[in-house]
Amino acid sequence: MPPRGRRPAGAPDAREQILLAARARFAEVGFERTTMRAVARGANVDPSLIHHYFGDKEGLLVAALVLPVDAEQVLAGVDADPAHAGEAIIERVLGVYDSDAGNRARLLGLVRVGLSHEVASAALRDLLGRTVLTAVTRVVAPDHRELRASLVGTQVGGMILGRYLLGVPALRDVPAEQLVSAVGPTLQRYLTGPLHPPSSP
Amino acid sequence: MPPRGRRPAGAPDAREQILLAARARFAEVGFERTTMRAVARGANVDPSLIHHYFGDKEGLLVAALVLPVDAEQVLAGVDADPAHAGEAIIERVLGVYDSDAGNRARLLGLVRVGLSHEVASAALRDLLGRTVLTAVTRVVAPDHRELRASLVGTQVGGMILGRYLLGVPALRDVPAEQLVSAVGPTLQRYLTGPLHPPSSP
Repeated sequence: MPPRGRRPAGAPDAREQILLAARARFAEVGFERTTMRAVARGANVDPSLIHHYFGDKEGLLVAALVLPVDAEQVLAGVDADPAHAGEAIIERVLGVYDSDAGNRARLLGLVRVGLSHEVASAALRDLLGRTVLTAVTRVVAPDHRELRASLVGTQVGGMILGRYLLGVPALRDVPAEQLVSAVGPTLQRYLTGPLHPPSSP
Repeated sequence: MPPRGRRPAGAPDAREQILLAARARFAEVGFERTTMRAVARGANVDPSLIHHYFGDKEGLLVAALVLPVDAEQVLAGVDADPAHAGEAIIERVLGVYDSDAGNRARLLGLVRVGLSHEVASAALRDLLGRTVLTAVTRVVAPDHRELRASLVGTQVGGMILGRYLLGVPALRDVPAEQLVSAVGPTLQRYLTGPLHPPSSP
């Protein structure tokens, strides 16, 4: 247990305490209504320390927004078998959230913040953009790389929204394998297939 | 301009004013922090009138949660050509939100409310479930109807999230036609195709 009273400025965990308090506050009341003062109170530090570490509220937001899981670690090696990378991606993602309610809760907080204000949306968009592009970069076909990566993001994001954040029964209550079978080919086409319908006139 | 002061209980637009005020309040501070008193103030009515019309806060939420567009109207006739229903669905949806910033703003409010609290998530889930199932009911293959409809929902929802709510550049800045070409076949497979990869061992 840390001692009562405000932490000294140099306490090694002060920065992490600030980020924890910021994440909680942002998730609860959104970007606009979060004040540096409230975060400082939550972290039990002096507000000046937040300015010292993060500059302004936007800097604090960017530092506080992190994915619940290390995407690079989760997706390491999905390019080993490029023809099945689509299945591998959705399988790994579902594994991470199926197995850990804490990950799901942190994800919900992240999305709430990201939709709370234009500044937060921009930060979340950048975070997701970097993550998805990094995740698929060794698999994705050379044409339309960003569009392909973003399409993967729409399907994975929509699945996360439906299965975990909204809890749609038909998505929530089926085994992950069934969703991997259904969604894997979609991701595979976005990664390496033709982006136009095969039968267009 | 309506006269100043509280509306009389029987004013024909009082119910609609309450719903407008409730939507704004729910979107701003979420389900839990919204009070009947604040909604009554916003609608310029007596709080008892809200109870009269909607019972409790949950009843008010369910009545206030509506899609920005009439989904049945938007998707009318997509089953005319069942083999291209997937393309038709995404084309109609993009048309509705590309053309009207007000629709996009109302959608953002709806999703914010839906993620603000478990009660609101349940209400949004039911609303989306009914909508999607109604929209695809005449096209979807007889096996796994709910799963198929829900899969359509994940891809359409993820696209809406990326293009409009987060504004991912590769999705936001391309012509709708390009997204229709890319996503149409996905929806088509979810509606009528095999839900397993063709090449599974």
